[in-house]
Amino acid sequence: MTAKSKDSRPGGRSARVRSAVHQAVVDLVAEIGADKVTVPAVARRAGVHPSSVYRRWGTTAALLADVADSRQEEEAPELLGDLRQDLERAAVWTLADLSRPGGVAFFRAEVAPDVDDRRAGLRACLERVSARFRAPLEAAAGRGGTPPSLERVLDRVVAPLYFRVVFSVPGTDERYARGLAAELCAEHPAGSSG
Amino acid sequence: MTAKSKDSRPGGRSARVRSAVHQAVVDLVAEIGADKVTVPAVARRAGVHPSSVYRRWGTTAALLADVADSRQEEEAPELLGDLRQDLERAAVWTLADLSRPGGVAFFRAEVAPDVDDRRAGLRACLERVSARFRAPLEAAAGRGGTPPSLERVLDRVVAPLYFRVVFSVPGTDERYARGLAAELCAEHPAGSSG
Repeated sequence: MTAKSKDSRPGGRSARVRSAVHQAVVDLVAEIGADKVTVPAVARRAGVHPSSVYRRWGTTAALLADVADSRQEEEAPELLGDLRQDLERAAVWTLADLSRPGGVAFFRAEVAPDVDDRRAGLRACLERVSARFRAPLEAAAGRGGTPPSLERVLDRVVAPLYFRVVFSVPGTDERYARGLAAELCAEHPAGSSG
Repeated sequence: MTAKSKDSRPGGRSARVRSAVHQAVVDLVAEIGADKVTVPAVARRAGVHPSSVYRRWGTTAALLADVADSRQEEEAPELLGDLRQDLERAAVWTLADLSRPGGVAFFRAEVAPDVDDRRAGLRACLERVSARFRAPLEAAAGRGGTPPSLERVLDRVVAPLYFRVVFSVPGTDERYARGLAAELCAEHPAGSSG
């Protein structure tokens, strides 16, 4: 067995490094803010050589984007089977994700000009947030309802949350996020039925 | 008269440098894209020494933000006196502004971690876009109507446009922008009257 195949084995050294580096990023973002996170600091905290981090991720921005990418898959709330409630939960989830320490900075990393694969990062970011809402919408359609389109949910629920968090508009809390989803559902009363 | 007071006189050397540098930025953004604009290239195009640009603006991001700040005040469309039409025009204006070459890059520059006064930049950006919609809303209220709140216009018209342009959502055109404004106005039928 070569060192290379050992490295890429699940649970092997490569996975352990990735996990340690990700955790170091999350911790440092919470402690000192995403703007101040550097590759040497991450490497020191993770107990790996900085060159391992540079080789694998290239830049701090790419590293932040990768962490953002893997973090947001973990916490999907279970569907309750009621469109309004499920969209409200997805809205609260999206807001919480954006509002956590470094949340907007993670998003900024993905749209920043200095991320090499910015387009891919943007697609991944949009797909990730879309997936949170696609599940409840498909479930509602499966129950025979006529839920709003995903595009409409992006316009009416997701876009205001992103805009308000990026621009720090006051009053953007959990209740507000639920209200955006509830108002949209009120326009699609058949969405919850079936 | 000292050199300093000469420099800060309107129409003086300082104003000429600012104007030449701004025009160079606009031209270069259109030609090579905002991501590739550098201070030396801007200085060369503007016919000034790079150190003048560094001293005054510091970074490319700060320079882009300053250009964005001054550009968007120029083009306000005249009010027609009908809320729906005026909001539609403001929506189209906002979309055009975001969609022009480098438009999103200008916005990115303002939210980028490397702009020193990022908070001030964000406030300025929000205030600028708000002003475009505040004028028609105040005019409608002055005519005795009950237009939607500015906050509602930001959620329903501005936020979707920003989100869709940043994430390159297909179909985000002038017609779409008008539709966002028209749909909101249809919920506030008294807004246009009076």
